[in-house]
Amino acid sequence: MDTAQLPTTDEAREQLLDALEHPDTGQLPALIARWHPALIADAVEALPRDMRHTLWDRLDAIDRGQVLIEVGRGVRQQLIDEAAQDELLAALATLEMDELADLDADLPVSVLDAMVRAMDVQRRERYERVKRYPDDTAGGLMDVDAAAVRGDVSLKAVLRYLRQVRKRDGKLPEHMDSLVVVDRQNRYLGMLRLSDLVSHKSTAIVSHLMDAEAPAIQVGTPDTRVARLFEDRDLMSAAVVDDDGHLLGRITIDDVVDVMRAEADGEVMRRAGLGEDTDMFAPVLSNAARRAVWLGVNLINAFVAAWVIGLFEASIDQVVALAVLMPVVASMGGVAGNQTLTLVTRAIALDQIGRGNAMALLFREVASGLLNGAFWAIVVAVVATAWFGNTQLGIVFGCALLINLITGATAGTLVPLLLERLGIDPALAGGVLLTAATDVVGFFSFLGLATLFLL
Amino acid sequence: MDTAQLPTTDEAREQLLDALEHPDTGQLPALIARWHPALIADAVEALPRDMRHTLWDRLDAIDRGQVLIEVGRGVRQQLIDEAAQDELLAALATLEMDELADLDADLPVSVLDAMVRAMDVQRRERYERVKRYPDDTAGGLMDVDAAAVRGDVSLKAVLRYLRQVRKRDGKLPEHMDSLVVVDRQNRYLGMLRLSDLVSHKSTAIVSHLMDAEAPAIQVGTPDTRVARLFEDRDLMSAAVVDDDGHLLGRITIDDVVDVMRAEADGEVMRRAGLGEDTDMFAPVLSNAARRAVWLGVNLINAFVAAWVIGLFEASIDQVVALAVLMPVVASMGGVAGNQTLTLVTRAIALDQIGRGNAMALLFREVASGLLNGAFWAIVVAVVATAWFGNTQLGIVFGCALLINLITGATAGTLVPLLLERLGIDPALAGGVLLTAATDVVGFFSFLGLATLFLL
Repeated sequence: MDTAQLPTTDEAREQLLDALEHPDTGQLPALIARWHPALIADAVEALPRDMRHTLWDRLDAIDRGQVLIEVGRGVRQQLIDEAAQDELLAALATLEMDELADLDADLPVSVLDAMVRAMDVQRRERYERVKRYPDDTAGGLMDVDAAAVRGDVSLKAVLRYLRQVRKRDGKLPEHMDSLVVVDRQNRYLGMLRLSDLVSHKSTAIVSHLMDAEAPAIQVGTPDTRVARLFEDRDLMSAAVVDDDGHLLGRITIDDVVDVMRAEADGEVMRRAGLGEDTDMFAPVLSNAARRAVWLGVNLINAFVAAWVIGLFEASIDQVVALAVLMPVVASMGGVAGNQTLTLVTRAIALDQIGRGNAMALLFREVASGLLNGAFWAIVVAVVATAWFGNTQLGIVFGCALLINLITGATAGTLVPLLLERLGIDPALAGGVLLTAATDVVGFFSFLGLATLFLL
Repeated sequence: MDTAQLPTTDEAREQLLDALEHPDTGQLPALIARWHPALIADAVEALPRDMRHTLWDRLDAIDRGQVLIEVGRGVRQQLIDEAAQDELLAALATLEMDELADLDADLPVSVLDAMVRAMDVQRRERYERVKRYPDDTAGGLMDVDAAAVRGDVSLKAVLRYLRQVRKRDGKLPEHMDSLVVVDRQNRYLGMLRLSDLVSHKSTAIVSHLMDAEAPAIQVGTPDTRVARLFEDRDLMSAAVVDDDGHLLGRITIDDVVDVMRAEADGEVMRRAGLGEDTDMFAPVLSNAARRAVWLGVNLINAFVAAWVIGLFEASIDQVVALAVLMPVVASMGGVAGNQTLTLVTRAIALDQIGRGNAMALLFREVASGLLNGAFWAIVVAVVATAWFGNTQLGIVFGCALLINLITGATAGTLVPLLLERLGIDPALAGGVLLTAATDVVGFFSFLGLATLFLL
């Protein structure tokens, strides 16, 4: 099987839709059997809402479990709401512990209760161990079924142990590129790569071959920091330990990839005031209601700017050209400020700004705003002078633009730093506050200067 | 070693800066030895430009090579420009083929020539094999040093082969969780997981144990599609094949993680008209020059909006309240449109929109715009009526807002779809075009309606 045979999401959606609309052709079971659940999940997200449940009805418990894991939260909520409780319980029973921990927040309490009651003792104990840690920490990401070996044994003993595990469980833990090495007290020592295990003499001792430099992760580490660590170190898996270094579990890169994707998607979506996992085909009413809040926040912003303009009604009444040009000043400040805001927000996310270099950054951004402000001030002054035949108006226009580009650079740097200090997500609130600053200063400086020098 | 001892980027930067500024304490060598090159690279990005080269001088060739790989392109260019040619060549000689292929586009031709001339025959041949494929395809991502085994041999033979490889090369390829299985003609058959290799009898035959369902990737597949495939399938590694299924190389997840990060960062940065790898501390002048282009594009936009306002100078002259309220209409349309634009741009990137559901999406977005438009139209009509004591003005204001929210929804859906069809990146150009639409329609509808009904 190669990618030439793998349809894109859009092709998959069309094929599924076709098969769902013509059930008599019997195509659907063949498609479902051939496709990976992740592809089905992608297609489900792109299906109209009313077709999603029709497809769900045709899936088996294993595929249903995987689809629940793979779809975004908005779509997941719909599937959960529309499924019968016994269908859900059967699907949930097919999931691994760390998968279950990812979605149980979306389950109704009654299903959650029934699910835990249906678990055997071992599974319930493992589930409770995973649930002890918040979802957005290393503890929430880790798999507690880590295969660990002792440092003082030979490779031969390790191989024997792995064969036993495989016979007992029918398989080894997924995505295993290395084994965690611990001492007699279950304290973390290092990682033994499988590639070393298979290419050395079986009499060699684990602790001599293991990578003692491989980092272990404290159970409380935030998931975004875990992702950064995996990315920077090119890790495939890492051990999770408590404060005393005792082994608690193992994180593999596939879990980390999901965190990275959610983090990246989340930033883009939050900037527009959308939830991370917005369902494209959510019901229009709930969709509209969710966006109304964001529009309301921005409306307050817009009215504040309007109030500033209102202060200068008399000036506009005398020189109508002011009304024509004032949005240019406001919008250019917003655009320039947004460039700085984006750069600084990203640097904060990458943890690259601290007390030591914030001032240097502010200075550079303001200098850059000054240069661009001076250049474009001359351009707009010339244009406005030619347009309205009024040199003084041109000069005032240019000065206001210069002031507002510097305002954009200053606010673009300080707003995200301040929000970060206050514990507010700069990606969510940064744009609104920046626009407020550049609108108010833009209108005030242009109309204010005009009132002083033109009237 | 655990994360409690791993400083954040910001802490690392401060410690490095301290060590660089007080060379007599001798702290620097200890820090460099203790830290992973990735952490040093992160810190380099956050260092002021003049300190970067001072640090570079204190690194050995291996660390220099890794830092070059890990830093963003802007910072990389500075390091390359300031380094002596022999330093660069020594650093480049420490890199793997796929790493070299990632950065050679940034090297001056003279260095590139000298580098290739210094390679031994085997290394040069491998380099040329990698260079045959564009950087942004599976071929550009793959490592050609893949360890492949034949399907018809026993596990014992595989183990013997791996031991030979390790003795010959001193190590096995990095990040190996599985081996590629091929037939006598080097055609791809499947993947043999190391965890299966270590947990089965050594007399078992490879083709019985291998995962024949593991997808192979066509060499020309775009890197973003490769990333999506790894993410959806939870892959750790995959074989890369030509059109006839012959094995060419292997992609491991650490390469894919870099693609994902670049993709995510790129989208956020391009939305603000910034390059993907903008250096926070680039020289102010080149920084300002790069942003000037984006500001110029937006200035044209702003002047088009100003021209629309200019058409109604006479109306504003009669009713100054129009000038006060008109930015509210334009900005609300922009905010609403940006929500739709973000949602649709993301869906396009996820390949979830096609001919089949674009109309349905447009309909939903417009319906949502209509609902929100109706609601906020009433709110602003009441506010404006109270503010200016003019009911007709309030009604015109509300109607214009409604029109512009629908415009935002329509443009937010159609602009990215159209750009995608034209092969233009919606993340780059979408925002500018959307703002043009909502500004022009916002000002025109409000001032036009006012001219018709108020004067």
